[in-house]
Amino acid sequence: MTETRPDGNGYLPLDADSLARRLGQVGALRDRLGDPAGWQVREVGDGNLNLVFIVAGEAGAAVVKQALPYVRLVGESWPLPLNRAFFERHALRRQAARCPGRVPQILHHDDAQSLTVMDYLTPHVILRKSLAAGRVHPNLAAHMADFMAQTLFRGSDLHMDTRTRKADLALFAGNVDLCDITESLVFTDPYYAAELNRHTSPQLDGYVAELRADQDLKVQVQHLKAGFAGNAQTLLHGDLHTGSIMVTDSDTRVIDPEFAVYGPMGFDVGMLLANYLMAWFAQAGHEERPGARDAYRAWLLDLVAQTWAGFAAGFRALWQTERHGILYPAALFEDQGHHMASEKACADYLRGVWVDAAGYCGVEMHRRILGLAHIAELDDIADEDLRASCERKALELGRLLVLARQSMGGPADVIALAQAIERRGVPPGDGAVQGSAT
Amino acid sequence: MTETRPDGNGYLPLDADSLARRLGQVGALRDRLGDPAGWQVREVGDGNLNLVFIVAGEAGAAVVKQALPYVRLVGESWPLPLNRAFFERHALRRQAARCPGRVPQILHHDDAQSLTVMDYLTPHVILRKSLAAGRVHPNLAAHMADFMAQTLFRGSDLHMDTRTRKADLALFAGNVDLCDITESLVFTDPYYAAELNRHTSPQLDGYVAELRADQDLKVQVQHLKAGFAGNAQTLLHGDLHTGSIMVTDSDTRVIDPEFAVYGPMGFDVGMLLANYLMAWFAQAGHEERPGARDAYRAWLLDLVAQTWAGFAAGFRALWQTERHGILYPAALFEDQGHHMASEKACADYLRGVWVDAAGYCGVEMHRRILGLAHIAELDDIADEDLRASCERKALELGRLLVLARQSMGGPADVIALAQAIERRGVPPGDGAVQGSAT
Repeated sequence: MTETRPDGNGYLPLDADSLARRLGQVGALRDRLGDPAGWQVREVGDGNLNLVFIVAGEAGAAVVKQALPYVRLVGESWPLPLNRAFFERHALRRQAARCPGRVPQILHHDDAQSLTVMDYLTPHVILRKSLAAGRVHPNLAAHMADFMAQTLFRGSDLHMDTRTRKADLALFAGNVDLCDITESLVFTDPYYAAELNRHTSPQLDGYVAELRADQDLKVQVQHLKAGFAGNAQTLLHGDLHTGSIMVTDSDTRVIDPEFAVYGPMGFDVGMLLANYLMAWFAQAGHEERPGARDAYRAWLLDLVAQTWAGFAAGFRALWQTERHGILYPAALFEDQGHHMASEKACADYLRGVWVDAAGYCGVEMHRRILGLAHIAELDDIADEDLRASCERKALELGRLLVLARQSMGGPADVIALAQAIERRGVPPGDGAVQGSAT
Repeated sequence: MTETRPDGNGYLPLDADSLARRLGQVGALRDRLGDPAGWQVREVGDGNLNLVFIVAGEAGAAVVKQALPYVRLVGESWPLPLNRAFFERHALRRQAARCPGRVPQILHHDDAQSLTVMDYLTPHVILRKSLAAGRVHPNLAAHMADFMAQTLFRGSDLHMDTRTRKADLALFAGNVDLCDITESLVFTDPYYAAELNRHTSPQLDGYVAELRADQDLKVQVQHLKAGFAGNAQTLLHGDLHTGSIMVTDSDTRVIDPEFAVYGPMGFDVGMLLANYLMAWFAQAGHEERPGARDAYRAWLLDLVAQTWAGFAAGFRALWQTERHGILYPAALFEDQGHHMASEKACADYLRGVWVDAAGYCGVEMHRRILGLAHIAELDDIADEDLRASCERKALELGRLLVLARQSMGGPADVIALAQAIERRGVPPGDGAVQGSAT
C-alpha cells in the first residue's frame, strides 16, 4: 500500500457555492455531469458524520461526500480524523470487486480534501425510510444475502491470499478512530449512564435501570466486544444498518462503509437483522390503525428469515467453489475424498457466524434506543408512550438475544421470541435491580 | 512506526572469521566484550532458521544472531525473508517491557544485516535438554506462568491503549512469512502426507494413517487454525516450546520470538504445555531402568498443573489491577459496584484461553511427531520401537485434546488423560479408517 493517507494539509470543507468552482475541472465529473456552469448543487448530508452534496448537471448527476474534521451529529467538540474518506474508498473498492453492482461507483477522489465523488443513485431512497413507510422490496433479502456472503467470504482467509489479507488487515487497522466510535458507542455507553446517551424518558427509565443493573448481560456484551475488537475474520462494512442501504422497487445498493474494519462476520449480519427487527417493532407507531400493517409485519419477519437463509446458502456455495485461502484447505478435505468433513466444517463455521450475529443483533437494538445514534422509525413516533412501548420490546429482545445467543438455532427462534414479546408486552420496570444474580 | 524494514541490500552473512572485523567497531560490543583483537567466536546455531555465534572477549561474552535468507533446517531451496530479525527485535523489546528480566537484553542490532546482538546467557542451557536429562527447575513453573500472564495480558486490548495496539497489530501483520510457516507446518502438513513430513516408520504408519483419516479431528484442527489466523487477542511469542527457553537451577529466560504475531493467548500456553507433556511421554526413552524416573515424571506433570495455575492467578491479578484497555471497562463493572460481574467475566475469559490452550497443545504434539520439526527428547530415543511407543501415546493425547478440549476442565483432566494413556498404551493401528463417522 503505497498511497499516502491524508494529513489534512490544505483541507477545506466544500459548500454549495464553491463546489462547482473547486471540482469543475475534474474530467470524470465533467464527463458525467456536463459543463460546470450548469451544475446545480444541493447539500443533503443527513447522516451523522459528513458533508454530502448532490450535484446535477445537463448530462447527469453525482454525489460528493466530504469528511468533516469532527462528528457532524455532535459538532466540533468531537474531532474526528479526515482519513475516514480514505478507508471508505478502500472499502468501496473491495466491495465492488467482491460483490459487483451493489455499491456506488467511485467517479473521483481526493485524499487531501477527504472527498469522494460517486454515482448519484436514483430513484433510490434510504431503506430505513421505506421500511417506515411500509414498502415491500421483493429483491432485498436476496440482494443483501448475496452482498454479505460475497463480501464477508471473499474478504477472509477462507478465500484471500493470506499475504494480501494481512497487508489489508494492517491497512484497515489504521481506521482506529471510527473503530473507537463503534467500540464505545455500541458496546459500552448504552450499558451505563454515559454522557451522550439519550432514551425516551421517563417512560423507559425503570426498564433501562434494570437493564443496566443486569450484570450477566454486561459480561456477555463485553465478550461480544472482545470478539469485535479481536476476531479479525474478514473486512466488515462495519455499519450495515438500514440507513446504509438505498433501494428502489427492484435495486439495492450499500453505501457508507467508512467504519470498515476487520472483524467478525456476525457483526455485519447481526446489525442488519437488528434493524429489520426494530422496523418490525416500530410498525405500531406507523400504521394507520392497529393491525393495518399486519401483512407488512409478516414480510419484515420473512425478510429476517430469508436474509439469513440466503446468506448461509451463498456462503456454502462459496465454501465449495472459492475456498482458496489458508483455512480448511482442500488438500486436507476434498483432495482426500473427505467431502462430508468439509461440509461439517462449513456448518460449524456458519453456526459460529450465526451465534455471533444473534449477539450483535441484540447489542445493536440496545444502542439504537439507549445510546447516541437513534433510528428514525422509532424516534419519529410522536406518541411517547407508544414509542416507549415499541422500544421496550426491542430492548427486551436484544437482552434475550445477547444472553441466549447460543440457544438460538436460527432466525426462526429469534422470530418466535420477537412475536412472543410483541404479544405479551414488556412491563415498564420499576428501577429495582432484577435479572442476574452474578 | 518509522523504522525501515530491511530490504536485504548489502546483506552479507557473518562467519566466525569475519565477525570481529565486521562488528569490532560497535561500541556496545566493545563495552561488553573488550578489545576485538581478543574475541573468540564460536558458531553454535543449532536452531532451525538462523546463524548464531557466541563471542567471548576479555571482559565478557555476547550472542550474535543473524537471519539467513533461507530456512537453515531445509536449505536454500526454502527462501525466507531477512526481516524476521526485525520482528524478533520488536517482540523482544515488548517482552522485556512487559515482563522484565525474562528475555535476553539487546546490546546492538543492524536491520540491514538482519542481526541482533544479545546477552550471552550463562550458565544457562536449553530447557529441552535439561528435561531430557531429568533435571528439576524449581522456579520454572512460576517464571513461565508470570511470563505468559504478563506478556499476554499486557499485549492485549485488556491492557493496552487501543490505538497503540492497532498500530502494533499492523506492524506484526508484516511477519507474514514466519506466520505462514506456523499456518502450514503446524496446522496443515501433519494431517496429510505432505512432502516435508517425517515420522518413525514403519512403527507409526498404521496409527498415522488412522489419524489422517479422522475427519472430525481435521475439522477441529482447522477450527483451531482459523482461531490462530483470525483471533488477534494479543502479541504472542509464537514459538514458545522448551527449545525457546534457557534455564539454570534458578533462572529462566525466553528467547527466539521471531514467530511473534497477534493471535490467541491459548496458542503460547498450549504449545508450552504440549512440550512439557511430550517430555513426560519421552521419559521411558531416557531413564536408566524402568521406573527410575518416576519422581521426575511426577515433577513434570506438576509442572503442567502449576504452570496453568500460576498463569491463571497472574492473569486474574492483572485483570484486577491493570485492566485499562477498551475491553470490560471498569466504568461498567467496578465503578458500578459490580465487582462479581468483573470476576465472572475474567473466569469466562480464562476459560476461553484454557480451551484454546488444550486444543493447541494437541496440535503441537502432532506436528512435533508427524511434521517437519521434531523434538530431541523423542528423536534421540535410539530404540525405534520404544520411541514409536512414546510418540504414539503423545499423538493419542493430542487427538483427544483437540476433539475434547471443551470437556477439559483444567490441567488435572489433561494429566489424568495422559496417565491413562501411559498406563493402557495405544495400539499401533492397522491403517484402517477409524474414528470419525462424519
